[in-house]
Amino acid sequence: MHKNEIVIAPSIMCADLCNLEKSIKEIESEGLNTLHIDVIDGAFSPSMPLGIDTIKQLRKITDMDFDVHVMANDNEYFIQEMLEIGVQQISFHIESSTHIDRFVNLIKKKGVKVGIALNPATPLSQLEYLLPQCDTVLLMLINPGFATDKNEKQVSYANEKVRDLYKMIKEKGLDTSIEVDGRVSLESIPNLIESGADTLVAGSTSLFIPNKSIKENKKVMEESILKGLSLREEK
Amino acid sequence: MHKNEIVIAPSIMCADLCNLEKSIKEIESEGLNTLHIDVIDGAFSPSMPLGIDTIKQLRKITDMDFDVHVMANDNEYFIQEMLEIGVQQISFHIESSTHIDRFVNLIKKKGVKVGIALNPATPLSQLEYLLPQCDTVLLMLINPGFATDKNEKQVSYANEKVRDLYKMIKEKGLDTSIEVDGRVSLESIPNLIESGADTLVAGSTSLFIPNKSIKENKKVMEESILKGLSLREEK
Amino acid sequence: MHKNEIVIAPSIMCADLCNLEKSIKEIESEGLNTLHIDVIDGAFSPSMPLGIDTIKQLRKITDMDFDVHVMANDNEYFIQEMLEIGVQQISFHIESSTHIDRFVNLIKKKGVKVGIALNPATPLSQLEYLLPQCDTVLLMLINPGFATDKNEKQVSYANEKVRDLYKMIKEKGLDTSIEVDGRVSLESIPNLIESGADTLVAGSTSLFIPNKSIKENKKVMEESILKGLSLREEK
Amino acid sequence: MHKNEIVIAPSIMCADLCNLEKSIKEIESEGLNTLHIDVIDGAFSPSMPLGIDTIKQLRKITDMDFDVHVMANDNEYFIQEMLEIGVQQISFHIESSTHIDRFVNLIKKKGVKVGIALNPATPLSQLEYLLPQCDTVLLMLINPGFATDKNEKQVSYANEKVRDLYKMIKEKGLDTSIEVDGRVSLESIPNLIESGADTLVAGSTSLFIPNKSIKENKKVMEESILKGLSLREEK
Amino acid sequence: MHKNEIVIAPSIMCADLCNLEKSIKEIESEGLNTLHIDVIDGAFSPSMPLGIDTIKQLRKITDMDFDVHVMANDNEYFIQEMLEIGVQQISFHIESSTHIDRFVNLIKKKGVKVGIALNPATPLSQLEYLLPQCDTVLLMLINPGFATDKNEKQVSYANEKVRDLYKMIKEKGLDTSIEVDGRVSLESIPNLIESGADTLVAGSTSLFIPNKSIKENKKVMEESILKGLSLREEK
Amino acid sequence: MHKNEIVIAPSIMCADLCNLEKSIKEIESEGLNTLHIDVIDGAFSPSMPLGIDTIKQLRKITDMDFDVHVMANDNEYFIQEMLEIGVQQISFHIESSTHIDRFVNLIKKKGVKVGIALNPATPLSQLEYLLPQCDTVLLMLINPGFATDKNEKQVSYANEKVRDLYKMIKEKGLDTSIEVDGRVSLESIPNLIESGADTLVAGSTSLFIPNKSIKENKKVMEESILKGLSLREEK
Repeated sequence: MHKNEIVIAPSIMCADLCNLEKSIKEIESEGLNTLHIDVIDGAFSPSMPLGIDTIKQLRKITDMDFDVHVMANDNEYFIQEMLEIGVQQISFHIESSTHIDRFVNLIKKKGVKVGIALNPATPLSQLEYLLPQCDTVLLMLINPGFATDKNEKQVSYANEKVRDLYKMIKEKGLDTSIEVDGRVSLESIPNLIESGADTLVAGSTSLFIPNKSIKENKKVMEESILKGLSLREEK
Repeated sequence: MHKNEIVIAPSIMCADLCNLEKSIKEIESEGLNTLHIDVIDGAFSPSMPLGIDTIKQLRKITDMDFDVHVMANDNEYFIQEMLEIGVQQISFHIESSTHIDRFVNLIKKKGVKVGIALNPATPLSQLEYLLPQCDTVLLMLINPGFATDKNEKQVSYANEKVRDLYKMIKEKGLDTSIEVDGRVSLESIPNLIESGADTLVAGSTSLFIPNKSIKENKKVMEESILKGLSLREEK
Repeated sequence: MHKNEIVIAPSIMCADLCNLEKSIKEIESEGLNTLHIDVIDGAFSPSMPLGIDTIKQLRKITDMDFDVHVMANDNEYFIQEMLEIGVQQISFHIESSTHIDRFVNLIKKKGVKVGIALNPATPLSQLEYLLPQCDTVLLMLINPGFATDKNEKQVSYANEKVRDLYKMIKEKGLDTSIEVDGRVSLESIPNLIESGADTLVAGSTSLFIPNKSIKENKKVMEESILKGLSLREEK
Repeated sequence: MHKNEIVIAPSIMCADLCNLEKSIKEIESEGLNTLHIDVIDGAFSPSMPLGIDTIKQLRKITDMDFDVHVMANDNEYFIQEMLEIGVQQISFHIESSTHIDRFVNLIKKKGVKVGIALNPATPLSQLEYLLPQCDTVLLMLINPGFATDKNEKQVSYANEKVRDLYKMIKEKGLDTSIEVDGRVSLESIPNLIESGADTLVAGSTSLFIPNKSIKENKKVMEESILKGLSLREEK
Repeated sequence: MHKNEIVIAPSIMCADLCNLEKSIKEIESEGLNTLHIDVIDGAFSPSMPLGIDTIKQLRKITDMDFDVHVMANDNEYFIQEMLEIGVQQISFHIESSTHIDRFVNLIKKKGVKVGIALNPATPLSQLEYLLPQCDTVLLMLINPGFATDKNEKQVSYANEKVRDLYKMIKEKGLDTSIEVDGRVSLESIPNLIESGADTLVAGSTSLFIPNKSIKENKKVMEESILKGLSLREEK
Repeated sequence: MHKNEIVIAPSIMCADLCNLEKSIKEIESEGLNTLHIDVIDGAFSPSMPLGIDTIKQLRKITDMDFDVHVMANDNEYFIQEMLEIGVQQISFHIESSTHIDRFVNLIKKKGVKVGIALNPATPLSQLEYLLPQCDTVLLMLINPGFATDKNEKQVSYANEKVRDLYKMIKEKGLDTSIEVDGRVSLESIPNLIESGADTLVAGSTSLFIPNKSIKENKKVMEESILKGLSLREEK
């Protein structure tokens, strides 16, 4: 059975990075308890939003679940750092991993959830033996690390890929989460949920729409989600 | 003639990363106007203190001079990012640079100061033709990126290397700054200044000694500096 | 519906590299208007047929379509260079690309056609979400960059792979071109066309058979092509 | 038709590396004639069991078939070295190979058998066009190079993957060998054989169980194999 | 004793790349017999002027000395290719070489002259044990591979570095050639020769000044050279 | 004061690798107590003499001092492995090390001796600040990893480099060992010792001259050493 509870995972990148404590408190006060954190090395992708030391200090001021998305060439290094900090889920990219199965084990052994992240063009056939080992598949719907490039649009095959993954999960009798990341907006949310997504990385086109409070944005975002859920039921 | 004005450059890594605005305001209120910012890619060195997006947001809330120390394999990428943000000085490592002269030019063309950073064991002979091109030489006195490892001590040849560099600068008739970074402490400051250092990266063993205010730490730090300056004059 | 017009794309590598203008004029005078250009970095494959500056100068003396095949580790650099020169199609290798979808976008945004190139052993399942995004799939039928090694033969599964790709394209209702490269000879052309190929990279075993003029070679090559088209119709 | 003859390939890593000649003679005297040799570069995987010069000297003292498993980033270098020594089979990893088809050819041209090695999580779809070209598929059932880490267990999907590969081989009408490597133990052997494995890399959990002679271990190992073969027949 | 014969080495990059045969004949007819050829891989430096196959074909149409300047990460590959073609001198960069001494030997064993190329900022102390082993030191006076960037100027310390090298050569009692490359212009030639340079890579600011024939340019270039030689004698 | 005791360090590479225990016992019985062990990764240099597991087993059967020479790209990995095995000295190459000072500390902290290894062409100026930190400088007199290539001769500047290093050590008032490696033969030993070498890596041109016993070879080697020591005294 598929998950009807949709998780909103606000992206830390969109918070006020000079006043993180205040930002986190505002997010928490809206009842959101999953924080999406991008860790990028500037080499796998040309970006480096925030640092490890920042995450370490964040850990001390909030009990939110840390849902970390590593975009790096040296996955083992960043996975180890995140495990030490005490995060709740780590997703890493299959495209930069030689010993994928090993990284899965490193994470699971610590009681932390594992996500496998896929670039837009990476086929789902790569998940053949991995799917039952992981808690989440994180589908990138834009190219990772290029989010600040306003010309980067959500890939046209976003819903198709979510549907294919949803089908694959059902066929294997699993209940793996489908997390979507990249231009997840008020407009795109209903179809993404209809297609099978259950975790939404929320950034500047949803929870952090400029000039509105998180409370306001969350409200319209929830309407989008409800629309998605009812589309799903109609099927 | 050597510089008698000693610059204290507080390291952003030691600030309260969840409340950067507050931290910066406190630093500013003490009359300090140079902020030392480490940018590390997790590959040149196993560390990644804070991210590019954080620096971008910092730029909007303070007019302090940003003195950026890039520790990375892909210097060109990080230099370009820092130039875009609008920083005042960029130091990069000679050990990871093939086209050093080019990076110097990229930075100078934008009216930004250039520093050449050297790992502890890197000889000064590498600076043969570079010294007149740069504003600062940044001498690492511990291994870059391992600052959080409490077993890392300041290298035993710290003062010798500062003295050698000071001599080299004088012989060439230049007035290049000597910036020192790594366990620059109340105890080590007098001799470093005596040897010729003029810019001190201030971290957990000087301006950010735990359980004391920045005001208090700055006061004792200034005493250390005065001691160093009088030692210098005695020579 | 499949394409009945077969494109002959003469490989610049087989031209007289000391008299390119003359060579190109000869090719043009035969009514051929697509020039296949290999760009290899000596690292992805041990070869470097001709340089970027040569292509730049070629651009000024002919209006032929430039069909560029990049075989390199740093795809982004070579793609940008080719876009600046003004070419008509760029194919790059999936095996050396992390951000494939991004490269596709970079090329398409400039109004240039995109090809995805596959090494012989690379499975078609890699194209799952890419196929609708690209204009051409370039199937290497020998190992890329080893063409001058006379022991390199066309892979035994050449026709099988073309047929599989043709089927995949039809099933998705697309009209993607199938370009074949590597020992495309008078003997192999009929079956390659029968299998579904529509663009033939023409080298030393077809258009540039030694001791014959391009006119003569083109004539026999066209006979091979006709044979292929009639085989196709018979099915 | 599937192979009923099961090959036991003792892993040289488990022999007495200070007295290899004696160890090899003991193995030979048990009628075993395939020696499994791991060649690891310390970079593809953090391990380097034994060196090339050791293999060279081994070649002079035994006529056993050398079944070499290369785990390296620079496959071409190690393949060439092994071909020069005169080994009987070389398996290399698909995950570190750009020109897979070329490596297959290099090996076959010398009359040596070719194996394709797959990490646990690597999907079988990668073998689409390769399967008919190779003599063996070597399925890693633990992460390669981490064998000495006692926490590394055989992957839970070991039998499923062997079965899938067996089915794929049969569907293509081939008789490719299925070699299994990683915690191939007395307990796991029956099911691995039932699933379709025919070559067993024998290490510390089968032929080299401590405090027992190879003769004794071989005897119980053969019982496990017989159990596997009868399970297979029952189907 | 220093060389009074100054060699003009026209850079092939500035020739008509679509009509190389004609260009080479024109150069030859002016009595010039050294052709400077840049081989760049697009990775050591972002440039790839012309290819290996072009050099191969050039070899067949001229007897000029080929003075090849390799700017690449994989020096061994390009050195081997150049040796096979039959060139007269190969210079490679010290900055991308681990086994410098080995490359020197590979080249010398074939009776080919060896040059060591240095980036602008690379100190001469790197030549400590190499100087007596090589025929030429090639000093880059702009950053290699950025020649087409019009903002790249000759480094300010060009003459100083030539003088230092000249002194080093004399002190060791050698007669190593000093080749200079990068904005070697009518204006800069006199001082470069005065400082000790004896081989001039001639490009768009000397032999290939636009809108003038090579004959005309050569004439004014020779005047510059004479000026340099007389400056040298005055000392 | 310079060391008059000359250490002979037999190279394990020249032992009988299939009967190491026997070989070691023979070496031990000649009163030699330092074993030189080369660890090469096949990437820094194209060679991989013996493996880590072999060294591990060797450690159990002898009390000889293990003098390990790491020739690798990933020095940290191999240093850690050697420290775990329990060796007495580790030399690593400066050419593949970014954080040299850190590797020195890692080794010293375990009470193990540190050597810095230099390729033939690497200048001594690299040792400026390192010399006082290390116990040994290991001068490669042939290109590392190419020892089996019979065309590789000892570099012509071998004695000059040893003399320069000896002078540098004396000027700094240190007593660092000078270890020489590469065609250290009966003929070259006297001059190497006269120049200042005190540790001789002994291979196929000294202690392992074919068709003679180690006892016999050691005897003539000692005569060479005495010749060297008397040459030294004469000065």
